[in-house]
Amino acid sequence: MSERGETAEPLIHGEEFDDILIDQAETGLDEDDRLKPEFLTAVLDAVEEGDSEKARDLVSPLHPADIADLLELTPSDLRGDVAAALGDLVGAEVLSELNDYVRDDLIGALAPEQVAEFAAELDTDDAVAIIEDMEEADQQAVLDAMEPEDRAAIESALSYPEESAGRLMQRDLVAVPEHMTVGQVIDYLRDNQDLTRDFWEIFVVDAAHKPIGTCQLSWVLTCPRGIAMADLMKREQTLIPVDMDQEEVALRFQKYALISAAVVDGGGRLVGMITVDDVVHIISEEAGEDILRLSGAGEGDINQPILLTVRTRLVWLVVNLGTAMIAASVVGLFENTIEHLALLAALMGIVSGMGGNAGTQTLAVMVRAIATNQVTSSNTMRMIGREFRIAATNGSVLGVLIGIGSYLVYGQLGLSLVFAAAILINNMVAGLAGVLIPVTLDRSNVDPAVSSAVFVTMMTDSLGFLTFLGLATIFLT
Amino acid sequence: MSERGETAEPLIHGEEFDDILIDQAETGLDEDDRLKPEFLTAVLDAVEEGDSEKARDLVSPLHPADIADLLELTPSDLRGDVAAALGDLVGAEVLSELNDYVRDDLIGALAPEQVAEFAAELDTDDAVAIIEDMEEADQQAVLDAMEPEDRAAIESALSYPEESAGRLMQRDLVAVPEHMTVGQVIDYLRDNQDLTRDFWEIFVVDAAHKPIGTCQLSWVLTCPRGIAMADLMKREQTLIPVDMDQEEVALRFQKYALISAAVVDGGGRLVGMITVDDVVHIISEEAGEDILRLSGAGEGDINQPILLTVRTRLVWLVVNLGTAMIAASVVGLFENTIEHLALLAALMGIVSGMGGNAGTQTLAVMVRAIATNQVTSSNTMRMIGREFRIAATNGSVLGVLIGIGSYLVYGQLGLSLVFAAAILINNMVAGLAGVLIPVTLDRSNVDPAVSSAVFVTMMTDSLGFLTFLGLATIFLT
Repeated sequence: MSERGETAEPLIHGEEFDDILIDQAETGLDEDDRLKPEFLTAVLDAVEEGDSEKARDLVSPLHPADIADLLELTPSDLRGDVAAALGDLVGAEVLSELNDYVRDDLIGALAPEQVAEFAAELDTDDAVAIIEDMEEADQQAVLDAMEPEDRAAIESALSYPEESAGRLMQRDLVAVPEHMTVGQVIDYLRDNQDLTRDFWEIFVVDAAHKPIGTCQLSWVLTCPRGIAMADLMKREQTLIPVDMDQEEVALRFQKYALISAAVVDGGGRLVGMITVDDVVHIISEEAGEDILRLSGAGEGDINQPILLTVRTRLVWLVVNLGTAMIAASVVGLFENTIEHLALLAALMGIVSGMGGNAGTQTLAVMVRAIATNQVTSSNTMRMIGREFRIAATNGSVLGVLIGIGSYLVYGQLGLSLVFAAAILINNMVAGLAGVLIPVTLDRSNVDPAVSSAVFVTMMTDSLGFLTFLGLATIFLT
Repeated sequence: MSERGETAEPLIHGEEFDDILIDQAETGLDEDDRLKPEFLTAVLDAVEEGDSEKARDLVSPLHPADIADLLELTPSDLRGDVAAALGDLVGAEVLSELNDYVRDDLIGALAPEQVAEFAAELDTDDAVAIIEDMEEADQQAVLDAMEPEDRAAIESALSYPEESAGRLMQRDLVAVPEHMTVGQVIDYLRDNQDLTRDFWEIFVVDAAHKPIGTCQLSWVLTCPRGIAMADLMKREQTLIPVDMDQEEVALRFQKYALISAAVVDGGGRLVGMITVDDVVHIISEEAGEDILRLSGAGEGDINQPILLTVRTRLVWLVVNLGTAMIAASVVGLFENTIEHLALLAALMGIVSGMGGNAGTQTLAVMVRAIATNQVTSSNTMRMIGREFRIAATNGSVLGVLIGIGSYLVYGQLGLSLVFAAAILINNMVAGLAGVLIPVTLDRSNVDPAVSSAVFVTMMTDSLGFLTFLGLATIFLT
């Protein structure tokens, strides 16, 4: 921060105050970078009128990511027509930005040769993303239509497990031996025009092709030509094993603020490179999917075929039906008590509900903390103690509040004491279940986001009813 | 993908299969990149024995991000001692990686001059992150202790709203006029050693200092010296207004796969640059915080002072107490019915619970879709239709399942029909509430993640009880 970015020459600072958003308005985007409905309607109208040229004129200023958005926002029965009208505006880049389901839809209508052509234009990782979801036979047809070299790259990527670093990486990278100087590297890059033009760091490798350092391009550009790469490179680097899960890759990029990283095979040799732009959407997806898993909404993709969505959610609802039945059977044990004092039926839902809410709070915090690697065996006990104290405090406050409130309304001291005690106990159950269940599941290598909620709800519902109705049976009847 | 990354010279591929994880084990990290508890214990033991040298030896191989993790995992009463023992290993970079609460804790113990020294070592954005959370007076003391130029940079950043692009950006960047050639740019970079050394793209500006294009460093490196920047640069670029909210900045980086982007003031002039590594943690936080907001767990930071956590969660629980009381009062209307048929009290929780689960599923999907800009007025109606069909399908399946099941158990046809009908109706209420409430809140500029759950639960609880007990009163008594 000691220096300040400056231009090479003194620049005249103009007085204009153009609205910099004008460009955006012209491309059909609103202030949140979403396509305006009027714009979408105009494109769809042009397509329906058969005026492909007008549709293309409208769409051509858009970034591929925005064209992908446009196709996603188009009702599915019109997508084929829109894609056909736009022609080559729907290129490889657009396809790689598309939602998986929408892409499968569109690709299903293409000939294998066309898909192969698209794939050839892309980096390995983007090409693999398009091809990996296809049916076996279609996949083979596309691969057969590719150039041998491209095919080999894709086949090799497909040989790694799904969602692993091997699928994410690209094979086009720049690696140089450590004895080269900055000048030699620059000359090498200029002379080899078949090298990739998109890279952010240069990897320095030893004779066995193992990475021994990385060098940002800005360092190469700001150093004299005579400096050896060995003296310029950073030796501490984060290597990504080729079979590492993409979630771990994303966490590592995030933790060490990486722009690109070398991918190595089991022998430690450089086999590819992952760049941060391929990881950013994984970071977002992985962070966002916990909320969907915790609520049993599967991947929660709004473009998923509706029957698949129904099935995913139904499975979850049926599992929860089981826990609801357990809770109902607990209530059933106290039918006599309820017949004597029907008021209990109205109030018992408050006990279970408050416990459920408190449990969900703790659960959400724990699921996030586990997902971001913040919980280790070093601090698990501290976390349990922390949540227990929070639960005891909140339970006490709520218990007193509800005890006093219900005494003012019903004037029955015994009922209010039972109510307050049940609220306190169930809050503590909720706090402990909310921390112990996800931690235990995580240690057993079960994803706590998927399975915790069922167990926590079962505890807070059943034990909430049990304490409240049980105490009521003992002290009030 | 047509070319394949190659090294400048043919390299001998060795036969060794070293375990590439060995390096990691030696630095005290487990396979998930988390610090091993034994390692933490060893460091804490050394500190407690007063053996600072041993502690430093253990910690010195760690990356600053891992030293930050170490401090976070250290119990709060020992943190000061550990930081003191580690001395200059806890440098500016470690501070900028630390959790806000833990950092405030440590910084509170430092003299303003020390904080100023740390801040001076960092990029503007990281320095601002450290200073912005301090109390006014402490902040002023730190600023007073800084060099005038650094102070000016920080003060200027602090003049932008919190969580805006102006706070995120760094002012050290490289901007050149368009008429410069590649060779001139390289010479300029070599000759101006006070320029920043960490940048990924060069911005090309016009005479008014407005960005007119960007150029990746790899393009500069792979092109002949004679090419003009104007011919090399990409003219379509994503400009970030200096007052843009950081969440929008993050979405833009994600959508357009940016590595760095120019930040412009109201006049369109280049004032700074944001790089993706500063955005990655925002992407993760923004995506992860919905789960915490939806469950009323506030920011869900496990390092937050416990009283603050208690207060945040308690507010939410008290709000939910209100909705639970409304639901209880609905049940209260039917006390007579329940006295006649106490079984209803056991079963009514299944109706409300299943509705609650279905509502949460829809809500989670909608909250994510809204947060990722996937919902626009172009597809809102389609989303509502989609969720309605899902709710009707799942409600029907569950209704039939529960109707048949309860008939087999209780043998009362009327009860089973009422039960099934209530389940179906409440599922549809849940589906509609789960989509309409967040969409309406979003249009009213209220964060749907924070407020939706209360309303949806109120609907599914109250209407669930109302339909079930209401139908039972009409048809069964």
